[in-house]
Amino acid sequence: MSLPAENLRVVLASRPVGEPVLSDFRVESVPVPEVSSGQLLLRTRYLSLDPYMRGRMSDAKSYAEPMAVGDVMVGGTVCDVIESREPGIDVGDIVLAFSGWQQYAVADARHVRKLDPRLAPPRTALGVLGMPGFTAYAGLLEIGRPQPGETVVVAAASGPVGSAVGQIAKIKGARAVGIAGGPEKCAYLTELGFDAAIDHRAPNFAEQLAAAVPGGIDVYFENVGGAVWDAVLPLLNTYARVPVCGLISQYNRTSRPEGPDRAPALMSAILTRSLTIRGFIQSEFVGTRYADFIGEMSEWVHQGRVQYREDIVNGLENAPAAFIGMLEGRNFGKLIVNVGMTEQ
Amino acid sequence: MSLPAENLRVVLASRPVGEPVLSDFRVESVPVPEVSSGQLLLRTRYLSLDPYMRGRMSDAKSYAEPMAVGDVMVGGTVCDVIESREPGIDVGDIVLAFSGWQQYAVADARHVRKLDPRLAPPRTALGVLGMPGFTAYAGLLEIGRPQPGETVVVAAASGPVGSAVGQIAKIKGARAVGIAGGPEKCAYLTELGFDAAIDHRAPNFAEQLAAAVPGGIDVYFENVGGAVWDAVLPLLNTYARVPVCGLISQYNRTSRPEGPDRAPALMSAILTRSLTIRGFIQSEFVGTRYADFIGEMSEWVHQGRVQYREDIVNGLENAPAAFIGMLEGRNFGKLIVNVGMTEQ
Repeated sequence: MSLPAENLRVVLASRPVGEPVLSDFRVESVPVPEVSSGQLLLRTRYLSLDPYMRGRMSDAKSYAEPMAVGDVMVGGTVCDVIESREPGIDVGDIVLAFSGWQQYAVADARHVRKLDPRLAPPRTALGVLGMPGFTAYAGLLEIGRPQPGETVVVAAASGPVGSAVGQIAKIKGARAVGIAGGPEKCAYLTELGFDAAIDHRAPNFAEQLAAAVPGGIDVYFENVGGAVWDAVLPLLNTYARVPVCGLISQYNRTSRPEGPDRAPALMSAILTRSLTIRGFIQSEFVGTRYADFIGEMSEWVHQGRVQYREDIVNGLENAPAAFIGMLEGRNFGKLIVNVGMTEQ
Repeated sequence: MSLPAENLRVVLASRPVGEPVLSDFRVESVPVPEVSSGQLLLRTRYLSLDPYMRGRMSDAKSYAEPMAVGDVMVGGTVCDVIESREPGIDVGDIVLAFSGWQQYAVADARHVRKLDPRLAPPRTALGVLGMPGFTAYAGLLEIGRPQPGETVVVAAASGPVGSAVGQIAKIKGARAVGIAGGPEKCAYLTELGFDAAIDHRAPNFAEQLAAAVPGGIDVYFENVGGAVWDAVLPLLNTYARVPVCGLISQYNRTSRPEGPDRAPALMSAILTRSLTIRGFIQSEFVGTRYADFIGEMSEWVHQGRVQYREDIVNGLENAPAAFIGMLEGRNFGKLIVNVGMTEQ
């Protein structure tokens, strides 16, 4: 097989101010890099688009280093190995990599994980059996710890994290209440077995949420912040747990929100109701829970007890628009770019 | 022994607006109540004054029901039993009770705990070996979980909770940094073995605190809120734990603080640094840790590894002024009212 000469990629052209716009990204073509010993040349099948990428585009310190302007946009990928200089990984293997928004990439072999397409569709390694699924699993079970009969609430509930949170909560015997944008997504939550689905766009959203949790909220899996959090906080029971894995509603914010300052009231709520608010990144739990996750979640998916939905966008050049739309909630299911290189 | 006829007591005269004032309390004299089967007549030796009482004076829902106007002010007490209608408790026994701001009280025998004055001075049951000490012990060890070499910061550090937090942190091999108001209290922290003592009244308090924690803060034991919390938050390390047992700086607040709204930034900090913020009331841990506490803490006190300081005010009629002063940080050590009935 002759190797490709050109590598199409998407780089960070400028740091977004508020909502990212298309001009913050630049599609460029560069030579395909050379492979050294211990490395692989990868051809991207699928690129995962995830909210955390918005944080990496800013220069604010977060849990990961920001990207530099000009860097290839980061991201998880499912790739074909098209050249290998590592024993044990062969041309034709399919791997999970973190090779970003590009058609080809060189990766150290120790940074990829071989996928067995007989066990599960390779794309699930970007979703229900990958980082989003593990975020749901680890955050809910290690921090949320739902007990039978308790009420678990999750927002962005039709997305890859939220849908897994609700379905795992059901498996653990809890009530699951999902929040999503629009009637179509809410109908999907009901299909998944959520006990209630609330549309956060409804004018009486807060009242609807309160009515859906007559016994209060024991676990709120926080991945959005903003108006949803405002509606949830008064409903949290004593000893409620709030795993915080994302605040997508805040990521595009450019100014401090207007007063009054509600931080003291938040601390008072934490005190008087013995709340636990706990931020986390899934990587914290990889060492202790990843093997359990793969075992249990694969079985649940196989049994149909955890279902998942994908939103596939074709063509790397469409990744920026798809990413911008995701931050506005326009995707429906795990957002994946079919980079379209599988036919070459 | 002839029974007393008159019972002096302090009742809630009106709900405070902001800082309590003397007219929010009323000293009154009522007949000593009658004792029924299973009950005791108690004569108060010592009354404990604690910040949580401020919350009980308001009508806002908190972890405990508010007092009604006209109710006797609540509070822990050390009392002599002067009449007993319960087998196994004798006249002359000393008990820990929750009989409030009054000279005499009738209590159900099952609501008191006998104290052995040969094991420890009875007053310690209100402080280092009582609720404040247990608050420190349970919050630090169950939520803070300091590891050897980590840095623990506590405010109100010369008080009964803070001083125990710092000293237990040292026993567990952590660095202890205390925050207190004024040079005298800071000097006392150094005597107790704190690694650093910072005066929150210093104009460059935040800079001094940052300099005292070159490796950041791993555990912040929160009992004050306000400006101390503002200085602490930027210094919290990834995975820092914040047990929240009090927010004394907020208790007298009457209006929502001015903007910007810092609650979203607080949530962002929790997310990006994987913080744990956990409110608690010591009673949560009584079932699981109280026996450990009494055993360990008694030994540490006996060994001199945990020292304590008391601030004794004489006369029940002086309790309101002492309580108001405590909310302003004017006490120095565990504030106890010597009700002065021991000589009768």
